[in-house]
Amino acid sequence: MTPTVTELEVHDIRFPTSDQLDGSDAMNGDPDYSAAYVVLHTDAPGAGETEHSEGHGFCFTIGRGNDVISAAITALRPYVVGRPVPCTAVDLASLHRELTHDSQLRWLGPEKGVMHMAAGAVVNAAWDLAAKQAGQPVWEFLSAMPPEDLVELVDFRYLTDVLTRGEALALLRAAEPGRTERAARLRAEGYPAYTTSPGWLGYSDEKLVKLAQEAVADGFGQIKLKVGADLGDDVRRLRLARAAVGPGVRIAIDANQRWDVPDALRWMRALAPYEPHWIEEPTSPDDILGHAAVRAGQPVKVATGEHVANRVVFKQLLQAGAVDFVQIDAARVAGVNENLAILLLAAKYGVPVCPHAGGVGLCELVQHLAMFDYVAVSGSWDDRVIEYVDHLHEHFIDPAVIEGGRYSAPRAPGFSARMRPESIAAYRYPDGPVWRAREPEGVTG
Amino acid sequence: MTPTVTELEVHDIRFPTSDQLDGSDAMNGDPDYSAAYVVLHTDAPGAGETEHSEGHGFCFTIGRGNDVISAAITALRPYVVGRPVPCTAVDLASLHRELTHDSQLRWLGPEKGVMHMAAGAVVNAAWDLAAKQAGQPVWEFLSAMPPEDLVELVDFRYLTDVLTRGEALALLRAAEPGRTERAARLRAEGYPAYTTSPGWLGYSDEKLVKLAQEAVADGFGQIKLKVGADLGDDVRRLRLARAAVGPGVRIAIDANQRWDVPDALRWMRALAPYEPHWIEEPTSPDDILGHAAVRAGQPVKVATGEHVANRVVFKQLLQAGAVDFVQIDAARVAGVNENLAILLLAAKYGVPVCPHAGGVGLCELVQHLAMFDYVAVSGSWDDRVIEYVDHLHEHFIDPAVIEGGRYSAPRAPGFSARMRPESIAAYRYPDGPVWRAREPEGVTG
Repeated sequence: MTPTVTELEVHDIRFPTSDQLDGSDAMNGDPDYSAAYVVLHTDAPGAGETEHSEGHGFCFTIGRGNDVISAAITALRPYVVGRPVPCTAVDLASLHRELTHDSQLRWLGPEKGVMHMAAGAVVNAAWDLAAKQAGQPVWEFLSAMPPEDLVELVDFRYLTDVLTRGEALALLRAAEPGRTERAARLRAEGYPAYTTSPGWLGYSDEKLVKLAQEAVADGFGQIKLKVGADLGDDVRRLRLARAAVGPGVRIAIDANQRWDVPDALRWMRALAPYEPHWIEEPTSPDDILGHAAVRAGQPVKVATGEHVANRVVFKQLLQAGAVDFVQIDAARVAGVNENLAILLLAAKYGVPVCPHAGGVGLCELVQHLAMFDYVAVSGSWDDRVIEYVDHLHEHFIDPAVIEGGRYSAPRAPGFSARMRPESIAAYRYPDGPVWRAREPEGVTG
Repeated sequence: MTPTVTELEVHDIRFPTSDQLDGSDAMNGDPDYSAAYVVLHTDAPGAGETEHSEGHGFCFTIGRGNDVISAAITALRPYVVGRPVPCTAVDLASLHRELTHDSQLRWLGPEKGVMHMAAGAVVNAAWDLAAKQAGQPVWEFLSAMPPEDLVELVDFRYLTDVLTRGEALALLRAAEPGRTERAARLRAEGYPAYTTSPGWLGYSDEKLVKLAQEAVADGFGQIKLKVGADLGDDVRRLRLARAAVGPGVRIAIDANQRWDVPDALRWMRALAPYEPHWIEEPTSPDDILGHAAVRAGQPVKVATGEHVANRVVFKQLLQAGAVDFVQIDAARVAGVNENLAILLLAAKYGVPVCPHAGGVGLCELVQHLAMFDYVAVSGSWDDRVIEYVDHLHEHFIDPAVIEGGRYSAPRAPGFSARMRPESIAAYRYPDGPVWRAREPEGVTG
């Protein structure tokens, strides 16, 4: 008998990270890193005894509004509870389509914002569950699928002027030879990473320099600094960081959408002499033409994607020649399926995918997608790096593992998405003990 | 003493419109027109006795997910309750900025989807309240503001590559002469309208023909038909409609995002001989480059906007020469303030604004914005029409009034946003008597 999804459970989990200014940048001064966390319970064999019968997923937010995403996930309950556990590509394709094509819910986007992120959390939880049922980590589960199954997963609506199903199939077939060798190499060597931990805007110069040096000592070939609040500060910080890491290490910079196009051009002309590797989110993530103007108007390469709402906007960023790097986020779009569409679009244009991570559990999730891209889509890790931030991993059962500046390939079945039950209990908002113990004025809400 | 906002009340109100296929189109087969409705209560003079002490606003949805928007509006309570009643342009500018710039809530968009629509509902409720306090309908309240106040209301972030504050001020100053005359003409003649009532996709040919003829008899110079499900049906329906209304009446058509770019081009080349006035939403509202390709690749003019998420996307539609008509929606973006930005962008490019309406209360709201545009921004109603749909007006205290195919200028103070208390009580979901009386399988949820 096919097992059934018996319940969808949602938790509003918030970490008071604003206490330490971890995660602070030019747009997000005091984030409380949070997750709207979903558990799909089933009656699969071992239910109640082993977590392999559960699917885990989440949206990442930075505090207030985590309750709104939780409400949106709850609204998706009727689409999964009482349904057979999705196991195959066909099942996962059909769930993804149902969640994103429901005509009434689609009105709330379409395919963007709270409702779309909630769909992504549920889709990802279903992938976690399906991969566990198959006994594989998600990157291996995906990498074992034939190209015909992989294209089935993709919603080509609004893409066919640029990428048809036939072209996608040809791309995937071209990457089939060498899958086994690349998977073996991944297991042996891991996937290249860079770290943002030194560069939060709220950190002192001393902390920046110390952490930058530690990053290099730990084997990272690239670090990232937040910029965009004050040009004088940014010049000083970039100079300090360059001195700390030496000429051989790449320094990416990230403005977190702080600028209008004219600001971005002015700022980047001033920062270009320090040879930043890329400027990330120079302006609004919706501003395709703005990114193209920034890329055309100054010498530093342009990256964006963590806030790009869906595959249609990524399509245009590539069409318009607006980006040098595509930064997928595992939990912003509608889950694995939509990220597969974005990986295929990037592969068609030959643009490297350098995933956004950090937050709560984003490193854990997105490593699977980058590894799958290497094995079965782009077939390359040249110029590709996954972001790494060393916060909050202790709350996960199967945390991302970094060795020598590289992500180790996950071996446990699933999506590495499961949070420790004791962390869920402690940080539940507003009723967990961590929040109950805080003064009212310290509570977000 | 300045009065204070004492409470923010939210109602999930749904009308079972799917019973009659009112509102059915190629993407939205069975909408239950709904409103996530917000009331700002105050302690202003007359509180509890006159509705002039209350502000009313709402988001329009088509059923499922109305609860999610309601949760998002509820999350905005701390930004308004306990604060002084916003009365001036400065107050309304500051409320709008606070709601859209909160760094934690912004993460859920940014500036798109559920959270942004919720901000729009609260901003619009504040405008309703402020205009009532001033004793004016919103269109007059806005039209009486000096250009310096109007630019204060606009968030120019991400716009300055195309429209600076100085340019906006110059546009508004250029439209100052003649304000009084145009307002008087509006009061005397009303504002041109078109009607979509004949053209819902679920209607029979007989109903289409009958309603189209009635529309012409009622004085409308333009009607609109839904298209996009089946090309053969669309050709037949467009031919029937043309025969019914004669050559002098404009027939706009609306695909509601149904097509990819190649589909849109193929379809429009087949429909062009019937001389549709515009093709509306040929593809994804996010696809700026796609709209530009549709506009360039076939002879029919292109309109879009009801699902365009924010001013940044409108900016690009204009930059890219992707649209012939800008269709603002009163309740999709962040309220009056963001729509003012969009009106200014359209004025800069000389593109006519033809507002989207229908739904629940959208006619009531958006007429104020079009009339303000005529009086104080574009200064013109040439090629401009406001959509009209004759559904659900009976639920509003101050419904839109159509005479001879034109919107009569509202005279009652406020935004015409107030729903009848008995309608709120009857259609509350799921506890109102209309929903309690329905069979469980007929209940959305």
